[in-house]
Amino acid sequence: MAKQKLRIIPLGGLGEIGKNMMAIEFANDIIIIDAGLMFPEEDMLGVDLVIPNISYLLERREKLRGIIITHGHEDHIGALPYILPQLDVPVYGAKLTKGLISAKLKEHRYSKKATLRTIQPGVKFTLGNFKIEPFSVCHSIPDGMGLIIYTPMGLVVHSGDFKIDYTPVDGKPTELAKLAQLGAQGVLLLLADSTYAELPGYTPSETVVGEALERIIAEAPGRVIITTFASLISRIQQVINAAAKHNRNVFVIGRSMKDTTRIASELGYLNSPPGVLRRFDEIGRFPHNKIVLLTTGSQGEPTSALVRIANRDNSQVKIIPGDTVVMSATPVPGNEALVNRTIDNLFRQGAHVVYERLAQVHVHGHGSQEELKLLLSLVKPKFFVPIHGEYRHLSLHARLAKALGMPETNVFVMENGAILELDREKGKIAGRLPTGNVYVDGLVMGDLASVILRDRKLLSRDGIVVVIIAIDKDAGKIVGRPDIVSRGFVDMKEGESILEQGRDLVKTTLDHSGGRPLEWSFINTKVKDTLSKFFYEQTRRRPMIITTVVEV
Amino acid sequence: MAKQKLRIIPLGGLGEIGKNMMAIEFANDIIIIDAGLMFPEEDMLGVDLVIPNISYLLERREKLRGIIITHGHEDHIGALPYILPQLDVPVYGAKLTKGLISAKLKEHRYSKKATLRTIQPGVKFTLGNFKIEPFSVCHSIPDGMGLIIYTPMGLVVHSGDFKIDYTPVDGKPTELAKLAQLGAQGVLLLLADSTYAELPGYTPSETVVGEALERIIAEAPGRVIITTFASLISRIQQVINAAAKHNRNVFVIGRSMKDTTRIASELGYLNSPPGVLRRFDEIGRFPHNKIVLLTTGSQGEPTSALVRIANRDNSQVKIIPGDTVVMSATPVPGNEALVNRTIDNLFRQGAHVVYERLAQVHVHGHGSQEELKLLLSLVKPKFFVPIHGEYRHLSLHARLAKALGMPETNVFVMENGAILELDREKGKIAGRLPTGNVYVDGLVMGDLASVILRDRKLLSRDGIVVVIIAIDKDAGKIVGRPDIVSRGFVDMKEGESILEQGRDLVKTTLDHSGGRPLEWSFINTKVKDTLSKFFYEQTRRRPMIITTVVEV
Repeated sequence: MAKQKLRIIPLGGLGEIGKNMMAIEFANDIIIIDAGLMFPEEDMLGVDLVIPNISYLLERREKLRGIIITHGHEDHIGALPYILPQLDVPVYGAKLTKGLISAKLKEHRYSKKATLRTIQPGVKFTLGNFKIEPFSVCHSIPDGMGLIIYTPMGLVVHSGDFKIDYTPVDGKPTELAKLAQLGAQGVLLLLADSTYAELPGYTPSETVVGEALERIIAEAPGRVIITTFASLISRIQQVINAAAKHNRNVFVIGRSMKDTTRIASELGYLNSPPGVLRRFDEIGRFPHNKIVLLTTGSQGEPTSALVRIANRDNSQVKIIPGDTVVMSATPVPGNEALVNRTIDNLFRQGAHVVYERLAQVHVHGHGSQEELKLLLSLVKPKFFVPIHGEYRHLSLHARLAKALGMPETNVFVMENGAILELDREKGKIAGRLPTGNVYVDGLVMGDLASVILRDRKLLSRDGIVVVIIAIDKDAGKIVGRPDIVSRGFVDMKEGESILEQGRDLVKTTLDHSGGRPLEWSFINTKVKDTLSKFFYEQTRRRPMIITTVVEV
Repeated sequence: MAKQKLRIIPLGGLGEIGKNMMAIEFANDIIIIDAGLMFPEEDMLGVDLVIPNISYLLERREKLRGIIITHGHEDHIGALPYILPQLDVPVYGAKLTKGLISAKLKEHRYSKKATLRTIQPGVKFTLGNFKIEPFSVCHSIPDGMGLIIYTPMGLVVHSGDFKIDYTPVDGKPTELAKLAQLGAQGVLLLLADSTYAELPGYTPSETVVGEALERIIAEAPGRVIITTFASLISRIQQVINAAAKHNRNVFVIGRSMKDTTRIASELGYLNSPPGVLRRFDEIGRFPHNKIVLLTTGSQGEPTSALVRIANRDNSQVKIIPGDTVVMSATPVPGNEALVNRTIDNLFRQGAHVVYERLAQVHVHGHGSQEELKLLLSLVKPKFFVPIHGEYRHLSLHARLAKALGMPETNVFVMENGAILELDREKGKIAGRLPTGNVYVDGLVMGDLASVILRDRKLLSRDGIVVVIIAIDKDAGKIVGRPDIVSRGFVDMKEGESILEQGRDLVKTTLDHSGGRPLEWSFINTKVKDTLSKFFYEQTRRRPMIITTVVEV
């Protein structure tokens, strides 16, 4: 009976990086894990954000018991402001996670309506048929959690985003012993992070970066300007520690960096010895070799503080020779060109720039192959679904599981919208939801018609030509000379004669089109064909052509 | 006296990757080294190619003695079809380089007019005041050459694109002994490749890849499909060797791969044991474990054979489980997303995919830091200019030279258009040419007006709205209801009411604009302001708005 099966439904984060979301359903209960956003890919022109498709959840609103957030990164919390107003269920997260969600909902003016509940590692809570016990995992933000979910069919373990760091900065390593105990009890299903399934070996400990930063700060002749992800609190802590050790003061610039250092300090996740972290307006009192500047801009974001500095466009900070800039981050896929441009411009200004290729000033927050194998070996699940990653990451993670002896039939490489049904013995893909991206573009949220994206792409390539034709309503004849306006096609100087010839061509074509009165569809086809051909011959470009007819 | 100085003028390839070109001038002679193209960056919407700005050369046409091409890659030869018709000078290149240039000029129907001359390592030739002696360097295409240029001021060494490989596939290592002899004689200036100045250590030998490919071919249960750069002849040779050793046959698909294997075979740069390289139409005769397919698509090019195969869109080859696909190349910056998508789709089809992150199936063709240091140490130049690379690569290369003891004042980090003047004792930057990219966009070649690129960018973001207003010529009053057409802004369904409201808004605004007859500039400003505001409120999007007035 289908009702007695456990359903696992990834709604985001599989076959892509970002907008992580998963539904777990049994009988009359559904719990949701994470609600993230994804930044648009290159071909999603003009789109602001992409969020998971929640139609499955909207159709089963009465079953929803809550959303559990594993940690406070955008790709796990970013969709909340868009979906909470539709779903209206309680949200569960650890202390810092909750703080970041609150700040985000406040920006969207939804904080008062939301129900946020705090959860802690080792403290179980019940949502309908499910009992959930969070456990600590290391990741590139504090309070990262995995979830042990007690279901009527057996134990499900969700890894969250994790790596194994035996010496994490916040002293909270991934709870391996607990996972080993679970493995001994018997785990039905493991859902585990695949983001770095391509990388052999182990991901280095965050403390490795601390050592590199300290060496740089100790040896720098002048100011040290450090950028990292604003949410990488442990990195910020290490910068503060290294600065304190070498008698430097830390100044923070950039809005998101200021916001998260404030939230993290208030909640006790960031500790600065007295006098180290200072207000920016005091910076003039200190010599350059006593200064560490912590800034936004690690992704080359065009309006960030560091990019403005690199472009000599920041009124407060100008690069001078002797400055050292540390890019303590890795470019997120798609941001490589922006980051490289920023590094180039900093070198142009005379700074010495240290980045990941030159020194170990960053480690990532996900487990590499040996860590993934360790998790699989400890948990020893009956079934395994690799989550969080592009299709290749999922495939390679599945390959690792099979190499460890898991039977082929118990490993499921899924994609968003697939429905896995499990009982204690067997699992199978039982169906597939209609998928499709939900785009946030301005105020509109939905499956942005593909025709809009296609048009934007066409427009971006060779621009647009608009032809305005006046037609005598009664005679069905063209009146006067057609007008042509263009954008992004040819420049005014060299293009003028081409456009003028185009006007004549339209006029001649329509004048000599037989005696019948002109009809819209005829005009439209005729004008487009004639002009496309003419423009292509003249310029080898294919602008979009729009014909409008004014009846006079 | 300025006339007695040697001028070094980079015209491309500095502060960027691609379109390499350099002029060396003394008294009445100018020689040009390389004439490459660059593929457009992300923000150069609709641009086909970018080539060097040659106005300096056009103004000194009578001084030009020839263009020497160091090797046959696009970023060194690709601009020839565009600049040769303007410059009309002889082109010098090694045998394979000349073959590739001929093929390229033939495509552009310019091969008959061009004068191509063959040069060889160790064989000097004279161009005006300059005597030139090419020497062999290893790179990712055969016939790579560096240049020793005997000038009235002293010896100039140009590295070309190079790495140091003691066991190259074609048996022609970089001529280190010759470089050491030059160093002993005294070298005025070294111009050296900086592309991989970020990477510590040594670049591995091409033979390392051969071993990896052989292991994969030996162990694969079914077909092996290998993609690489079509110009990477040594890689193709290694694929043929490994296939032959394991009794497999090699089939080539994809136009550029077929073309270069043909040219390279004809010129003797590619050797296949009899019966190994076969016509594609014979493939049906062989079992899967006897097949190696060599294909284009290493950069995820949308129309390439491999991408069609990955999309199940190739009529000749469909992926089946058991197939192994080897990406024996690295994504060129900017192509990462396309390559990743291709790998994902191949995994989806059931192939096992091997790529650089998983195994050493590619090595790059440029020297890493230890090789750059070796070159500097052997040549011991008085002056040094790092060439070929983004600004950070040039800066880091300069840093290496200073670490080896070169005085700061003798190392010049230059950018395109800077003019370095040297005599035997001193060097200085004596001027700067006006720079600016030369874009090839369709048939037009020139500094594509920045307004075109800006418009294309705006269009790509939120689309366009065209407003057509009919005005009574005599009364100066609006006639009827304005028309609105949009593309890429809102979709027809949800957007219709917004556009309809926009029409009414324009009508109301213009009807209530006082008694004066309507003027074009007033209409234009008023309509744009009103609609921009309205559309932004309704959608949070800012489409480009064009107003056209038809007088009736």
